[in-house]
Amino acid sequence: MMQSVTGIRRAIEKGETTPQEAIRAALDAIDKKDPEIGAYVHVGERKALLETAARATGPLAGIAVGIKDIFDTSDMPSAYGTPIHEGHRPTVDAAIVSMLRRAGATIVGKTVTTAYAFLDPAGTRNPVAPGHTPGGSSSGSAAAVAAGMVPATVGTQTGGSVLRPAAYCGVTGYKPSFRLVPTVGFKTFSWTLDTAGFFAASAEDVAFLAAAATGRDLTVEPAAGNRPRIGVFRSAVWEEASRPMRDALQALADKAARAGASVVEIAEPAELTAAREVHSVIQNFEAALALSDEFDRFGDRMSPKLVEALQSGRDTSPQHYDQARRLARQARRKAHALFDGIDVLITPAAPGAAPEGLGSTGSPIFNKLWTMTGNPCVSVVGASDSRGLPLGLQAVAAFGQDRLALSAAHWLENLN
Amino acid sequence: MMQSVTGIRRAIEKGETTPQEAIRAALDAIDKKDPEIGAYVHVGERKALLETAARATGPLAGIAVGIKDIFDTSDMPSAYGTPIHEGHRPTVDAAIVSMLRRAGATIVGKTVTTAYAFLDPAGTRNPVAPGHTPGGSSSGSAAAVAAGMVPATVGTQTGGSVLRPAAYCGVTGYKPSFRLVPTVGFKTFSWTLDTAGFFAASAEDVAFLAAAATGRDLTVEPAAGNRPRIGVFRSAVWEEASRPMRDALQALADKAARAGASVVEIAEPAELTAAREVHSVIQNFEAALALSDEFDRFGDRMSPKLVEALQSGRDTSPQHYDQARRLARQARRKAHALFDGIDVLITPAAPGAAPEGLGSTGSPIFNKLWTMTGNPCVSVVGASDSRGLPLGLQAVAAFGQDRLALSAAHWLENLN
Repeated sequence: MMQSVTGIRRAIEKGETTPQEAIRAALDAIDKKDPEIGAYVHVGERKALLETAARATGPLAGIAVGIKDIFDTSDMPSAYGTPIHEGHRPTVDAAIVSMLRRAGATIVGKTVTTAYAFLDPAGTRNPVAPGHTPGGSSSGSAAAVAAGMVPATVGTQTGGSVLRPAAYCGVTGYKPSFRLVPTVGFKTFSWTLDTAGFFAASAEDVAFLAAAATGRDLTVEPAAGNRPRIGVFRSAVWEEASRPMRDALQALADKAARAGASVVEIAEPAELTAAREVHSVIQNFEAALALSDEFDRFGDRMSPKLVEALQSGRDTSPQHYDQARRLARQARRKAHALFDGIDVLITPAAPGAAPEGLGSTGSPIFNKLWTMTGNPCVSVVGASDSRGLPLGLQAVAAFGQDRLALSAAHWLENLN
Repeated sequence: MMQSVTGIRRAIEKGETTPQEAIRAALDAIDKKDPEIGAYVHVGERKALLETAARATGPLAGIAVGIKDIFDTSDMPSAYGTPIHEGHRPTVDAAIVSMLRRAGATIVGKTVTTAYAFLDPAGTRNPVAPGHTPGGSSSGSAAAVAAGMVPATVGTQTGGSVLRPAAYCGVTGYKPSFRLVPTVGFKTFSWTLDTAGFFAASAEDVAFLAAAATGRDLTVEPAAGNRPRIGVFRSAVWEEASRPMRDALQALADKAARAGASVVEIAEPAELTAAREVHSVIQNFEAALALSDEFDRFGDRMSPKLVEALQSGRDTSPQHYDQARRLARQARRKAHALFDGIDVLITPAAPGAAPEGLGSTGSPIFNKLWTMTGNPCVSVVGASDSRGLPLGLQAVAAFGQDRLALSAAHWLENLN
């Protein structure tokens, strides 16, 4: 049973619980469940956290938040998933950590990230699909919410690291419009792509969290009566989607149409296909610069996959990179035009259910285009395959239309 | 007498000196001159630096570089000009530091930055205008080159922190197109504005340095025969320019015309004026988030001016910030259109010569528009007022046309 941000807040407002009790419940859940899941690399000291919670004020008082260990925290180690930075204790919090604290949240721990938020798995287990990957790179953040340890976590997406683990773990992931949430204080991999995001139990929860942290009007519109104009976006990589995922998208489209939404098919423009194909050019070129010194001095402590990506980035000419950036800019304009007469696109958030085994974090193929264009993406949860494994879809809105993406996801997840 | 990047390189190639000797000369100059100038907060250990230099290969072997102490260096303290981070020793180098080392440069020390690269003066003296400010925030980087201590330094510009100190100290500053040089590993103040840049003795030198560090084709075109199409851009803040500065701009335009350049007057579009006026809205809103935790916990160790800026950022609504960002985007498009038929604009790099006293770093009024639009800017040195104080002009090219800006500045500074 997942914890709910808005549920806890309502209970606090009704006097049914207190911020301190809510934090205590989260810490109890972590103690009980994390030995099996392995979602945390560090959990704060109970006494200190309860004292913090007792003093908390603001819209997130009583909300326990886990922070992906790619973000700096002044009161907890921040090692970015790699032994190269083991024991690192930053002087100051990352911007989003400070923003959450100012809104009253209690930061209870650091969640597992893959090394440098790249592709190598990190050992966290999927709470709803034992024996299957939780996805990555925000593995711990998705699993911590899925297992009911905390109501909310923070993650990042450079390829598909928010929406994909959310899909695999059956929780709501929200990747805001590019730079709506500052990236200051998180370990840069690719400055053009790195995006901070959130996990929670529902679209309403994740919207409440993000609104409180950013001071922006992101609260979801009431589901009743608010029928979005929907584009079904099968995309140019449709053949990568499993049969159950294809069926799940169609089922969602049908259900939305029955509930009164306008539903049309949207084909993928060639500019978007071209941009998806150069995602790794941009990512690797920038990562090779962002991690230049680390690659030179600590390359022997990096995984073969990471070394390969960084070497490929180093071998990319600035001209090739500039060309990829131009394609990305064209794609951004083209992506904007997709939303003429459409509120959101619905599209798979992953090729299918979580792959079996912990040897891979799965594929970001359905995510990286939207990371590159900077459009807001919100999970649409609820579908599952014949084994009961979650099948994650996502709602994508125009750049800057985060509230619309969140509201549409809320509407879609509340269809019966 | 300034040291010259290309001069040292030519001497090495001719066998007249060695990389180690060139670094030794820089260290000797620092020992001799810095006690009076105060350009450095830290100088590396001589023996280790000479050993590094002896092993150096690449286009920058033998080039001593000073790094503004807003950048992380793994082998030297990195305190961002503030006691809040005193003694901080990062695990890894900032991207540009690593890029310079990979090209063979020897990083000899950290140069003085104002606290957080903001406006409060930091005590460095102006080598060519005793008793006058060297400008800021890259005070030490400009002064170190001007005093002949090193041939090259790295700085940053969020308002006018490269071009303005370059103007006041009579050296060449180069602010590349936005994000041409990664900002990874420098202390973020405003992610939309923060730009890494370079200082050297001439446009040719700064171009050689930047080309070697970035692997991009930035080498200046030969001055002979290459007559740029020039727009004289007096700007909407022309009344802020001193009489000698106005005369210097006119004199440069006249000289260029006599040398065969086409010279036209370019008026400032209203969109650019509007953008200049909201520069501080964007800067302060982002700084308040970037330094959120520091402001909360260490605000009592910040200057009144910085506290005021951060508080103003905190008091700015996201809607107001978003509106400012929209104006900035419009200005970027409009700035691009200015270069239809024009290679570069020439415009003051500062209101006048370095103001007297060390109580202020001067005004970024002639710089912040171009920081916001991301256009490349290169100093045009050579003019001076009746007191012999340098009057800095700048050449501004279209976004991405860095080589053109550098080449035009080279052509202009070689007019007699």
